[in-house]
Parts: sequence; structure tokens; C-alpha cells
Amino acid sequence: MYLSEMSKDELISFREENVKLYDDFRAQGLCLNMARGNPCKEQLELSVDMLRVFDDGEFLSKDGSDVRNYGLLDGITEAKKFFSDMIGVGEDEIIIFGNSSLNAMFFAVQTAFNKGVLGSKPWSEYEKVKFLCPVPGYDWHFKVTEYFGVEMINIPMTADGPDMDMIEKLVAEDETIKGIWCVPQYSNPDGIVYSDETVKRFAALKPKAEDFRIFWDNAYCIHHLTDSPKYILNILEEAKRCGNENIVYIFGSTSKITFPGAGVAVMGGSKENIDSLRKYLGISIISYDKMNQFRHVKYFGTFENMLKHMDKHRDIIAPKFKVVSDTLAAELAPYGIGDWSDPKGGYFVSFNAPEGCAKKIVKMCAEAGVTLTGAGATFPYGIDPEDKNIRLAPTYPPIEDLKKAMSLFTICVKIAAADKLLEA
Amino acid sequence: MYLSEMSKDELISFREENVKLYDDFRAQGLCLNMARGNPCKEQLELSVDMLRVFDDGEFLSKDGSDVRNYGLLDGITEAKKFFSDMIGVGEDEIIIFGNSSLNAMFFAVQTAFNKGVLGSKPWSEYEKVKFLCPVPGYDWHFKVTEYFGVEMINIPMTADGPDMDMIEKLVAEDETIKGIWCVPQYSNPDGIVYSDETVKRFAALKPKAEDFRIFWDNAYCIHHLTDSPKYILNILEEAKRCGNENIVYIFGSTSKITFPGAGVAVMGGSKENIDSLRKYLGISIISYDKMNQFRHVKYFGTFENMLKHMDKHRDIIAPKFKVVSDTLAAELAPYGIGDWSDPKGGYFVSFNAPEGCAKKIVKMCAEAGVTLTGAGATFPYGIDPEDKNIRLAPTYPPIEDLKKAMSLFTICVKIAAADKLLEA
Repeated sequence: MYLSEMSKDELISFREENVKLYDDFRAQGLCLNMARGNPCKEQLELSVDMLRVFDDGEFLSKDGSDVRNYGLLDGITEAKKFFSDMIGVGEDEIIIFGNSSLNAMFFAVQTAFNKGVLGSKPWSEYEKVKFLCPVPGYDWHFKVTEYFGVEMINIPMTADGPDMDMIEKLVAEDETIKGIWCVPQYSNPDGIVYSDETVKRFAALKPKAEDFRIFWDNAYCIHHLTDSPKYILNILEEAKRCGNENIVYIFGSTSKITFPGAGVAVMGGSKENIDSLRKYLGISIISYDKMNQFRHVKYFGTFENMLKHMDKHRDIIAPKFKVVSDTLAAELAPYGIGDWSDPKGGYFVSFNAPEGCAKKIVKMCAEAGVTLTGAGATFPYGIDPEDKNIRLAPTYPPIEDLKKAMSLFTICVKIAAADKLLEA
Repeated sequence: MYLSEMSKDELISFREENVKLYDDFRAQGLCLNMARGNPCKEQLELSVDMLRVFDDGEFLSKDGSDVRNYGLLDGITEAKKFFSDMIGVGEDEIIIFGNSSLNAMFFAVQTAFNKGVLGSKPWSEYEKVKFLCPVPGYDWHFKVTEYFGVEMINIPMTADGPDMDMIEKLVAEDETIKGIWCVPQYSNPDGIVYSDETVKRFAALKPKAEDFRIFWDNAYCIHHLTDSPKYILNILEEAKRCGNENIVYIFGSTSKITFPGAGVAVMGGSKENIDSLRKYLGISIISYDKMNQFRHVKYFGTFENMLKHMDKHRDIIAPKFKVVSDTLAAELAPYGIGDWSDPKGGYFVSFNAPEGCAKKIVKMCAEAGVTLTGAGATFPYGIDPEDKNIRLAPTYPPIEDLKKAMSLFTICVKIAAADKLLEA
């Protein structure tokens, strides 16, 4: 029976039953963390052989440089080749960074503030700079723009990606809108794959601001949970077709392919964009860790091998996503409480509680020993206007722990939902 | 006979003789690079065993974290312990960065521009911000402040470090002077070790600007060329004694201890400074490469072992410094041309040609196949007001190549010096 159809007495008894279950959980003294999209230990083990690639004593890259020494600001030749395949750009359209794509994004925003974009006025000289933020989204994107004092405008998501009608209208009107944060393949947290039409419309955007950039964070480009993945269109190719190739900055990394703490991050874009950014990058660093670049290239050899490697990740984490969807389906669907995503890749399940319940649910879980991503984190400034979205990150806990955590989670959702109806 | 004592005919014949030698060199088609302080291949080989430290399959740091995963923004516990010994700060007074101390310095300057220093007005809100720059100095320091539009003021060096009278006077008067670049142990390029009095006076500085910071780049803190090294005083301890502990940011790295491209960089300072910077750092990165931190700590174990490791570097590079000083002494001293440093550590020899000759000498060397650091590079904006300083970097070339390069160099110096006298 749907909760909304229950009588007050039925609701009270439903609530009491679940409070009892909740108290039992509290008594267990759990300590589980589902806050971040951390790979689990078994996933980390997958890439350990990569640490032996230098046993051959070979440190010379194709360009004749010893990867142990200084030099090659934007990466070794073979890394440019390898990772340009991953993010769909040319070998002269890429910079290889350190271990953090977030750091590359911060660099791109910071450079725009300090020096402008391809000769435009530095963003720091504007009274106000605005960014469009499809919501729910990735909290760290929002933190970067908040750091720079950017005004962030929420853009609703649809099943095909962000609301393109709204985006097209806004960027055409307002010269102070300078960018948009996008996770186009398996969006964080909804797991939405941008449709071909969405990508084409992004590629063809005609913003009033010539220095507007799409921050295309393709963090989950090969992180599939099915064997028939839907790939997004190549946005740089589409943009070139529209004579609009400077509009997009593309980011990616191996954080969730090899090691989150010690992967390789990359940024791609038109040659003009990359040439300009490389110049500024060279002020702040001599070169990134080329040994780690070479380690990755030597280990995988080809992009195809890296795709095969991702199948091993999938074998480990797909069952965890199934625990989440099974538990939600079994425990909440019969009562008609909440709705949630069914991602085909990426690292998250997006859960929408009844309005006004997200903070309460996250707090209750925390008090029973399960840490979730903070409610509100998926929105700019940490403010979810409806207080309903909760990001679930199933990859890190062992499967038995995950089952417990999801049981607890659904109990908390049930209590919060019942409370809301009882208070109404 | 000193060149200055030669008759015109003697000068002409001296010049012709050296032009002949120069032409012989040109005919050889040399291709040697002494531009940067790059370690040589033998030095890179010293640390290769570090790449095997994970053969034991142990990835847990003392804090219970898997170094392969996300987290620990400011570094793993054992890296903080290990590197705090290296730069002379406490374990809660350090941030472990990626592979580049330059990047850490850029971060510190950038944060001051964006957010101010411990609550002060952001530097970006000043019409003009100034830095003091002891000269000759490190070109990349100057590039960072130039990037931010900082006005750089040359400060002369003495045998004890920068001219402290001038520094004390300037910082006391001018609130827009916000910082100074220092390489206190084996300054780049002079190889000067700051005297105890100099360090004490820095520690006791009372600048008009409360957000003034000393950028203490201790890049060569254990990079000795003798077995009785003179260590600088610990500036943070001295500053604490004066109740002035917030005045200094300390930087260091293993770039010239392990691998230039894949070392570990660190920043230290008062807890208040570090706590503030850590907060902002967390916007731009989740964590640096903790595997590489752990790699270093596991490999060396103790700071004392790292010191022993430095002896091996010294065995390789001290003979190269000897080639430089022997050649200069044999070829130039008898003619009274130029003067040069006799460094007891670090990576450079600083050579002063007769005024107005540096650019010419560097150009002549380049045309004969030997690349030196650009003349002027050791000064802000690349402008050496007397056009005389040339930075020699002896570590990279094999010793036989270095001998050739130094022969060529002295020939070019002789020709330029003779030209100058002939033109007078």
C-alpha cells in the first residue's frame, strides 16, 4: 500500500515499526562511508601491476626525453597519443596534467579570471560573472566557481541532459554568463547520458560572450555498467562542424581507471585554446609527473586494453549498483516513496526523497553510523531548494556492508516520509 | 698579462687567436645544453630502486588510509613527519604537494591574490603590489610574480645574503610590498648561504604590510658539494622567537634528490598559515599523489638515509663543478676577465662577464652549439641592468662534454672582453 494512501493509524504503526528497526541499527554501531565515489580495495588491486612497468629500466619516451627529468610541460608524446583517444581530441589538442582533473578545471577557470580567454577581458574585471549549473551536479565543480565568486544559476536536468532551451536562451542574452559545468556521460549524480541532440546543441551554442566555455567533465567516459554502452557524441568534432571549436574545454582522468590518488588527468580542446592555456601553465609548473604518464601508457599499451580493464571494474561494482536498485525497489517502491536513477555507468545513484526530507534522512543515517554525501551537496552553494536529492555512492563498501547501509537508508527514508505525512 | 694592460696590437692578436679557436669549435657541430639545473642520467639512476618499494603490496599509511585512493588533502602522516625534518617545521606545519614546489609557490601567491593572507585584503584589490627580488635570482620566481602583474624591485646580494639594510627600510615604509623571493641555502645562481645574522634579520622583519610574506625557497637545503656544509638557521624557529611566525612560507622538494619530474614538493609555515592555505587548497584538488609520497618515505625510511643519498649525488656532480672552476681559473684568471662564484652546494655557478658582454657571450655559445641560460634570465623581467650575469649549470652534460663547453665559453668570454676594450 502506498504511504500516501495510508490512514493516520496505519502511518503511525508503519512509522513505529521502522523506528524500532532504526534503533536496532543504531545499536549495531555501524561505521560505513558512502559519501564519495571512492573505488573499493578490489578495484585498486586491478592496477597494481602497473607499478612494475619500470622493471625493464626503460625511461626514454619517444621524444627522446628521460621521463625522470625535467621538461615536457604538456606531457610525453605517447601520453598525448594515448589520452587523446580517451577524450576524443587530436594529439596537439591535449595537455597531460598531474593526478587531478579537478586541478586542471581549477587552472582553466583561474586562468580565465587572471588572463581572460583567448585575448578577452579577464573575468576578474567583471562586476559579476555567472555560470550555468545543471542540477543536481558535482559539488566540487560548484566549489570552484563559488571560490571565484561566480554567481551560479541552476539548470534543470532532463532525461537527455540539461534543459537546452533554457541554456540557449540564457547564454544568448547575458554576456556575463561565461561557462557551464557538464558531466555528459553518466552525469554526477543522475547517471544521465546526454543525447546526440543535446551534444549537437551544445556544440552549436552561440553565446553572447565570446569567452563562454563549456566545461565538459567527461569523468566517466568509459565507466560503463552494461555491455551495450551508449556513447555520447564527440563534442569537439561537432563543434568544429559548426565553426565553433573554441567553445569547449574537455576533461578526463584515470582516477577511477587506475588509482584515484595517483592517476593521470588530461584536458583537451581546440588547438587555439590549448596553445593559449599551455603558455600560462608554464608559469606555474615545469612539468607534471611524466613517470606516471609513462607508467600508464606502458601498462595499457592501447586504448582498447584500457577498455578491457574497465570490464574488470564493472565486474566488481555492477553487483553493488544492483544491491542499491534492488533494495530501493523492494523497500520503497511498494510504498510509493521517492524516486531514483537507474544508471548504466558512472559512480552514483541519484535518489529523490519526498520534498523537505533529504537533510533529515542524511542526518539519521549519520547518527546510525552511515555517512552519505551531505544533503544539498549536489546543488550550488549546498542549497537544494526542495531538500530532496541524495547522492548514493555504492562502490566503496564491501557488498555485505552496502546491504546493511541500504537497509538503514530505506528505513530512514520511510520514517522521514511518514513523519512528513503525519505532520501535514 | 691582464687584458686591461694589453696594447691595442696585443688585444687584436689575442682576439684573432681566440676567434680562430672559436671557429674550430663551430666546425665541430656541438650540441650541448647547460641551460637548466637538470640532474644527469647517473643521478637519475641513483633513485631507481625507489620504484620497487611497492613490491611488498603494502599500501596502507599509518593513518589507516590506502594511499592509492582519494583523500588526505595535505599528505599522508609519514610524509608529513619525514619532510617536516627536511624543511625544519612541525608535522602540523606542512602541506605535501605534488611534484613541483614551483606549483606550491604559485598556489601561495595566487591564493594571496584571490583571498588575501589570513584575512587581509586580497592582493588583487590593490592598484599595485610589489615584491623584492634579490638579484641575480631564479627566473621562474620572477615569472610567477610577473604573471600576477607584481612590480619587482631588485635587491643586491652580498656574501651574506640579500642587502638587509635595504630590505628592512623598504618593507617598513611601503605597505604595497607584499613579499620577497629567497633561496637561502646555495642561492640560485650565486650559491650564497645566508648568514645567521641575515636569517635572524629576516625572521625579525617588521613590514608595514601585515600580509607580507618571505617566500623561502629552500630548494637546495641538503644539496652540498663539501663534507663540512654550513647550514642556514631555521627561519621558522627564529621567527617564533620574535613572535613573528606568520612571516615566512617555506618550500622544498626532492626534485634534485630523487626525480626532477616525479619528486615530492612541500610547503611549511606556521600552523595558522598552513591551516588557512589548506582550506583553499581543498577547492582545487582532492589530494596529491600519495603513492609517490609513500614511495619516497618507504625508500628512504629516515631523513639521515636521505642525507647519505645526497653524498652519492655529490660524488657525481662535484667533479663537474671542479671542471667549471678549473677552466675559469686557468683560462680567464690570468687575463683578469670576469669574476665567478665558488659554490659549496646547489646547482649553479654564477659568472659575471665584463659589463655589457653577457648577451653577446650567450649568443656566441649558442651559435657554436652550446645552450646556456639566457642572459638576463637571472633578473626580473629578464633585464640584467649591467648585462653581465650568466648562470652556468654544470650538472647535466657528461664531463667530457662539459670540458668542451667550458672551453668554448671561456673563448667567447675572451673575445667579448677583447671586443669591448677595442671598442672603448
